[in-house]
Amino acid sequence: MKTLNVQLGERSYPIYIGTGLLDRNETVQEKISGSTAVVVSSTTVASLYLERVMQALLPIRSISVILPDGEKYKTLEHLNKIFDDLLMHHCDRKTTLLALGGGVIGDMTGFAAACYMRGVPFIQIPTTLLAQVDSSVGGKTGVNHPLGKNMIGAFYQPRSVIIDITTLDTLPDNELSAGIAEIIKYGLIRDEDFFDWLEKNMDQLLARDAATLTEAIYRSCAHKAEVVAEDEKEVGNRALLNLGHTFGHAIETGLGYGVWLHGEAVATGMVMAADMSMRLGWINQQDVDRVTALISRARLPVRYPSGLATQRFKDLMAVDKKAQEGKIHFVLLRGIGQAVITDEYNGDVLMQTLESRQTSENVKGLSK
Amino acid sequence: MKTLNVQLGERSYPIYIGTGLLDRNETVQEKISGSTAVVVSSTTVASLYLERVMQALLPIRSISVILPDGEKYKTLEHLNKIFDDLLMHHCDRKTTLLALGGGVIGDMTGFAAACYMRGVPFIQIPTTLLAQVDSSVGGKTGVNHPLGKNMIGAFYQPRSVIIDITTLDTLPDNELSAGIAEIIKYGLIRDEDFFDWLEKNMDQLLARDAATLTEAIYRSCAHKAEVVAEDEKEVGNRALLNLGHTFGHAIETGLGYGVWLHGEAVATGMVMAADMSMRLGWINQQDVDRVTALISRARLPVRYPSGLATQRFKDLMAVDKKAQEGKIHFVLLRGIGQAVITDEYNGDVLMQTLESRQTSENVKGLSK
Repeated sequence: MKTLNVQLGERSYPIYIGTGLLDRNETVQEKISGSTAVVVSSTTVASLYLERVMQALLPIRSISVILPDGEKYKTLEHLNKIFDDLLMHHCDRKTTLLALGGGVIGDMTGFAAACYMRGVPFIQIPTTLLAQVDSSVGGKTGVNHPLGKNMIGAFYQPRSVIIDITTLDTLPDNELSAGIAEIIKYGLIRDEDFFDWLEKNMDQLLARDAATLTEAIYRSCAHKAEVVAEDEKEVGNRALLNLGHTFGHAIETGLGYGVWLHGEAVATGMVMAADMSMRLGWINQQDVDRVTALISRARLPVRYPSGLATQRFKDLMAVDKKAQEGKIHFVLLRGIGQAVITDEYNGDVLMQTLESRQTSENVKGLSK
Repeated sequence: MKTLNVQLGERSYPIYIGTGLLDRNETVQEKISGSTAVVVSSTTVASLYLERVMQALLPIRSISVILPDGEKYKTLEHLNKIFDDLLMHHCDRKTTLLALGGGVIGDMTGFAAACYMRGVPFIQIPTTLLAQVDSSVGGKTGVNHPLGKNMIGAFYQPRSVIIDITTLDTLPDNELSAGIAEIIKYGLIRDEDFFDWLEKNMDQLLARDAATLTEAIYRSCAHKAEVVAEDEKEVGNRALLNLGHTFGHAIETGLGYGVWLHGEAVATGMVMAADMSMRLGWINQQDVDRVTALISRARLPVRYPSGLATQRFKDLMAVDKKAQEGKIHFVLLRGIGQAVITDEYNGDVLMQTLESRQTSENVKGLSK
């Protein structure tokens, strides 16, 4: 088992990465102080892993709350269902919530923990690659609103993050790829060596080689932990982690939540960020080609469907929360491994990128 | 204008108390950094004061969100209406929310600010006595759930609290009394001198004498600020401020939100806490009589209606968030000005208190 620490003073917490951690009583119970635990999970994940986690919690009293699968249930309304159950079971302020599932479950459980009685402890047990390398670490929690993703939420840190690599055995291929998108992101933002390593190791990653996965997850979490420790509330450089996300959120919203996976939208968003950086003269065509090639090899889309008109794309980005005081800020590249936050671009360049990355072909098929 | 400071490190903020503050541009605008302000208010308060606040905000762009009056709208559903408006107006992370109204508006606006894009700044402009001396200071925000009051919320501090005494001119008598209940509470919890002062000055308070009101509000806010500075998240002595609230919440929930005002329920709750303390031998009958007399003089109820059965009363308290790990903790009195948090009582004493403070008479009439 490998351990990383997210350094946030009194809110610091460990990330455990290893195999079979779901079944380890001491790891699962370590951060539980009260006498009741509530495991929040989704239908699919619960059928695979809930019993094992409940077993690992014994003799602590545990209750489960099962939500339907899918991003479309990441709403205030379904959040309220968690509150209903907590209150019906007379859960008090010392109750610990455990998020067992992907990013949707982690975000909702974390936000429920942030709000229930103004804050109860929670633990992340991410079971998708995307949640393991990104959303479970760093304390961003929340739900969607019909007018935008993650518009309602809180910064609220877990007490621990327990990453059991073996849960990836049951992950569908497209979700594995979606997770790899966020892994590639860390290389692009701040670690060219890691980007090189990914170019060399992409085949083993896609083949789910355990040692390669562990290394990729560990390096990704280390980057995330470092960035979060420096800027917990995203007033500065944490926003670099949004590389590809301003474009990506617009794609997700424009196509309708759940049509593309978050990681797929971010993948195309990163290609668009690279394209826009190239048009600004910051990186060259070879850089863009490397980014596009690696993302394609990861079986991820590199263009968005033309059903999403460019004007609508722009409107959707305007409501995104990275738009401060009216001007959209983008995370762009000064090089591979060197991301910057900027609003220094002209609208023509943005429009050229939006036009050039649009396609009328079957996009997700194309990328494979 | 008097100023107090709530000392919370980087989250410290001033409380301004004075007359005509609503109209003072520099006070209203002082803590606004972005280019957009959103004033959240209720129908009644908006009709009286909204225009003046919007005027004082100029030239900052301001938008208003008006919610219906009443505690029954303090729900997740109505909170979502605030989010709808913020998103429709493309409000970003630098938008400042202003809560113009009583406790319900303050709690909802604060919680909306805590959650919108994971946190935007907000300012409290309380217009009821209760909100001025209690709920606007200290960062407790939230909404109710059908199974319990304030079950969903956040600790989220405002950037400033602006108390304009002249708003009390339009306050109905019963709401004035409800505010006085919380003022009496500070005397009972931690300041016997203040309790004595209130015995001497109750008539002037009820007559809305400006100097007396200012003094009472200032001393109350000073107590609140001190307690909150020592224990922001209520892991310790902040819970003393819940004197009368465990009983009070059960009364409010049992009778249905809004049938009694919060302050009225807390008033009866404080009498019940005194009664229970006396039965435990901690204070004597004269102390209980002083508490009951002062609360009665403030035109507040000292008994609860028998329509609320004692068993149901107990059940309602069990779900209250002060119930930790199954055992209900009470704030009781070791003397006037000396409150303690305890779970050292036997159920018989609690039941005697519940039975003795029940009445079949028209309760709120009785107290006047």
